[in-house]
Amino acid sequence: MKYSEFIDTYARHPVYRAPTGSRLHAKSWQTEAPLRMLLNNLHAEVAEDPANLIVYGGTGQAARNPEAVKEIIRLLLEMDEHHSLLVQSGKPIGLIRSHPSAPRVLIANSNLVPAWANWTHFEELKARGLMMYGQMTAGSWIYIGSQGILQGTWETFVECGKKYFNGDLKHRLIVSGGLGGMGGAQPLAATMAGACFLGVDVDPERIQKRLQTKYIDRMTADYEEAKRWVLAACEKGETLSVGLVGDIGDVLERLLRDKLTPDILTDQTSAHDPVNGYVPNGLSLQEALALRRSDPEKYKERSLKSMARHVGFMLQLKERGSVTFDYGNNLRELARQGGEARAFDYNGFIPEFIRPLFCEGQGPFRWVALSGDPEDIYATDQALMELFRDNAHLLHWLTEARKKVAFQGLPSRICWLGMGDREKAGLLFNELVKSGRVKAPIVIGRDHLDCGSVASPNRETEA
Amino acid sequence: MKYSEFIDTYARHPVYRAPTGSRLHAKSWQTEAPLRMLLNNLHAEVAEDPANLIVYGGTGQAARNPEAVKEIIRLLLEMDEHHSLLVQSGKPIGLIRSHPSAPRVLIANSNLVPAWANWTHFEELKARGLMMYGQMTAGSWIYIGSQGILQGTWETFVECGKKYFNGDLKHRLIVSGGLGGMGGAQPLAATMAGACFLGVDVDPERIQKRLQTKYIDRMTADYEEAKRWVLAACEKGETLSVGLVGDIGDVLERLLRDKLTPDILTDQTSAHDPVNGYVPNGLSLQEALALRRSDPEKYKERSLKSMARHVGFMLQLKERGSVTFDYGNNLRELARQGGEARAFDYNGFIPEFIRPLFCEGQGPFRWVALSGDPEDIYATDQALMELFRDNAHLLHWLTEARKKVAFQGLPSRICWLGMGDREKAGLLFNELVKSGRVKAPIVIGRDHLDCGSVASPNRETEA
Ligand SMILES: NC(=O)c1ccc[n+]([C@@H]2O[C@H](COP(=O)([O-])OP(=O)(O)OC[C@H]3O[C@@H](n4cnc5c(N)ncnc54)[C@H](O)[C@@H]3O)[C@@H](O)[C@H]2O)c1
Ligand SMILES: NC(=O)c1ccc[n+]([C@@H]2O[C@H](COP(=O)([O-])OP(=O)(O)OC[C@H]3O[C@@H](n4cnc5c(N)ncnc54)[C@H](O)[C@@H]3O)[C@@H](O)[C@H]2O)c1
Repeated sequence: MKYSEFIDTYARHPVYRAPTGSRLHAKSWQTEAPLRMLLNNLHAEVAEDPANLIVYGGTGQAARNPEAVKEIIRLLLEMDEHHSLLVQSGKPIGLIRSHPSAPRVLIANSNLVPAWANWTHFEELKARGLMMYGQMTAGSWIYIGSQGILQGTWETFVECGKKYFNGDLKHRLIVSGGLGGMGGAQPLAATMAGACFLGVDVDPERIQKRLQTKYIDRMTADYEEAKRWVLAACEKGETLSVGLVGDIGDVLERLLRDKLTPDILTDQTSAHDPVNGYVPNGLSLQEALALRRSDPEKYKERSLKSMARHVGFMLQLKERGSVTFDYGNNLRELARQGGEARAFDYNGFIPEFIRPLFCEGQGPFRWVALSGDPEDIYATDQALMELFRDNAHLLHWLTEARKKVAFQGLPSRICWLGMGDREKAGLLFNELVKSGRVKAPIVIGRDHLDCGSVASPNRETEA
Repeated sequence: MKYSEFIDTYARHPVYRAPTGSRLHAKSWQTEAPLRMLLNNLHAEVAEDPANLIVYGGTGQAARNPEAVKEIIRLLLEMDEHHSLLVQSGKPIGLIRSHPSAPRVLIANSNLVPAWANWTHFEELKARGLMMYGQMTAGSWIYIGSQGILQGTWETFVECGKKYFNGDLKHRLIVSGGLGGMGGAQPLAATMAGACFLGVDVDPERIQKRLQTKYIDRMTADYEEAKRWVLAACEKGETLSVGLVGDIGDVLERLLRDKLTPDILTDQTSAHDPVNGYVPNGLSLQEALALRRSDPEKYKERSLKSMARHVGFMLQLKERGSVTFDYGNNLRELARQGGEARAFDYNGFIPEFIRPLFCEGQGPFRWVALSGDPEDIYATDQALMELFRDNAHLLHWLTEARKKVAFQGLPSRICWLGMGDREKAGLLFNELVKSGRVKAPIVIGRDHLDCGSVASPNRETEA
């Protein structure tokens, strides 16, 4: 296939899709793989906004601009195994002579020297076309849709269960605010982990979306109804997730009044952004949208106050026994600014649950079937279950994931494995490819929640 | 040679030296080379303070602590070409399986995520034994003594001559303050570039040291004498460097009064540190040292005021026609703080002289003869002069360097070459090694003044 034909078929901006099957377009799988991954990241099923090359997380891009995408494609189609491609914040900046064992593509995103590492400078460079925000996995072409956040959230809930509930979340109730892009993974992660879940979001459309994708079981705007549903399920030891339309602060206040103490309490409202994210208490969604436009300063002030109130209730519930943790949305810091002096009296999820796993050498990784055939992923699931047949945790995840995770774009999987075991998995995948049990090679990639990511100051932070 | 014997011979803390000759101690030159470079960087002829593993620049270390040095040596002696050694801020943290074409040693120094990239956090980590300051070349084992700064300064003066004096510095007078660790390279660089030089330092011992190492020609504490000497040499078109004991501000004031306008004016006093570096005007060195201890706040205030005065005179001389530039010591910023609002009215040397060279693809690199034999460096000099016989600039430098640069530790050389030419030089070195014209392999390394370094916010800065 000629370059122009390839572009017409797979990369007519803004419509992108990855080639599938076992036939090569590039010179080898070493270059075919990044080519398919780039295109997969821009596929409408995977990317939030392909027209702006945005994959996820608001502004996380796969490439600098449409010209850069085409140029990367051209280079990947043409280059051989004696060269390496350098990509700097989404733009191909060099094809250097290397050797077959060298990395084929080297990517660095959004790097700024500390003295200039601020949004002002970043935006200035971006406006001049010199910069791109790569998020955790968008700019490295290894985003796989919502399965990633689902698995990380599941791992967190399971770890919380191990640490505080003898490894069993049956009869346990998790309460959280925010059912948006990432927070929307909580209800499914909770039920997959064996718990009941009550999620509160001020925006009914966000909950509606979770219903459609089967990430949540039921929805209501009636507090009493939501309460009845989850308490009944908890009682019976069933799993159930309920989305309640409302302000999270108000709902926590009601729970306190009803002396109803959740077993686990966290939050994933968009607290990191007090103007365009969090919705202040006492305003309807419509009123909030209006105030955002008319008086952002006032809006921010109300947001901070509401967060202080919200965290105040969380602290009270913590005192009554809820296992309470921050989920990386910077809520504690902004609540502190809003007047809650004790805001940092509860821990973040990384030091609570994730860092202990890292310390043991446990870590996440993900893989993608380049063939595009779901059967290839099922084959890897199967083979891993045989290889690690004593790892009940892994078996549970893989079984549930196969049942509940809908693939987006190229079929993929993510899981956590210990040090040593990841190598074994890699050798197993080699064997599956070699023996033809899968139809094309498998891409293995890093995850958004690895020990590199937790160096971030505000999200997924160590602190 | 057994490990313990090797340590006894080459690494008995604090006495380090590199093995020389063509016999291997490690399994191949790929590991012998970093081994010798590490030990060379800690050699008393090269390092400022081997007992604290400090190579240069106040705190720039080659390794975290003496145990880390020994462990790195052990690993380099034992490892084969199927492994790579990871060194994090001077400590060996992993020996990973790789392949013969992979880098043998990967080093990362002093990396901090921007939100925590400040001295407070750095010092905290350092106090806990978790961090090390690597400077530009100490932590990467490629420091070669003062030849590096000499060559960079020479290159700057020559470039200034090309830009403002038709490429000829004959009859030209360069004036500068500060003849310390780096500033002390100015007089020799100036005369090698064909100019006359008047350097002013408040501390006679610093000038004394330059006399001993033949970096400066004459010394006096008498302004009139210094003036007479340099003006006479300029007049005759000879080269001469003179060190004058005094306060740079006072000397510039005298020059203004005498209507004597230097052709080129810069400064390398330790202005970056207004308390422990710069000496305020109006105090003797002894008075200054006393005030530093008794009242650092007051000292700082006087420093800033003196710098404002100092820069004020520089601006006046600039108006009278001196080509005036900053030499990366942050003097302009502190003078601004001291009250000189126009402090930034003259340019830094990087945008003036160095960036234009980078833009053409010109850049510095250095090499070291692992044999320890100076003849090997002379052989590379000779071969380069034959290969680039049309490059008068290079020929001049190599001829002068051979005459005036004393080797420290393993013999080495540094020069600037254009894009394409550096590859040719590399292939030439390969040939010299292969044919036995040099007695052992040559290490090629990056320089402290390359386009990575100029990303620094205050030194060698782009701004
Ligand atoms: N690994 C991590 O560190 C990690 C993981 C997941 C989420 N997070 C953080 O969680 C936050 C949410 O992420 P997202 O992608 O889901 O954001 P999002 O903007 O897509 O969703 C936020 C949701 O919060 C709702 N909301 C706002 N104010 C509310 C209020 N007062 N009461 C109830 N609901 C309210 C909004 O309607 C929206 O649906 C972000 O700050 C994110 O960084 C971090
Ligand atoms: N490439 C670069 O960016 C580059 C290169 C060279 C030097 N520098 C900068 O230049 C400065 C000097 O470096 P160094 O290693 O030589 O420092 P240093 O501390 O070894 O020497 C500074 C000298 O300045 C003298 N001094 C202080 N106050 C004075 C005054 N009022 N009048 C006259 N002399 C005075 C001191 O006595 C000392 O000898 C540093 O800030 C360094 O970062 C930068």
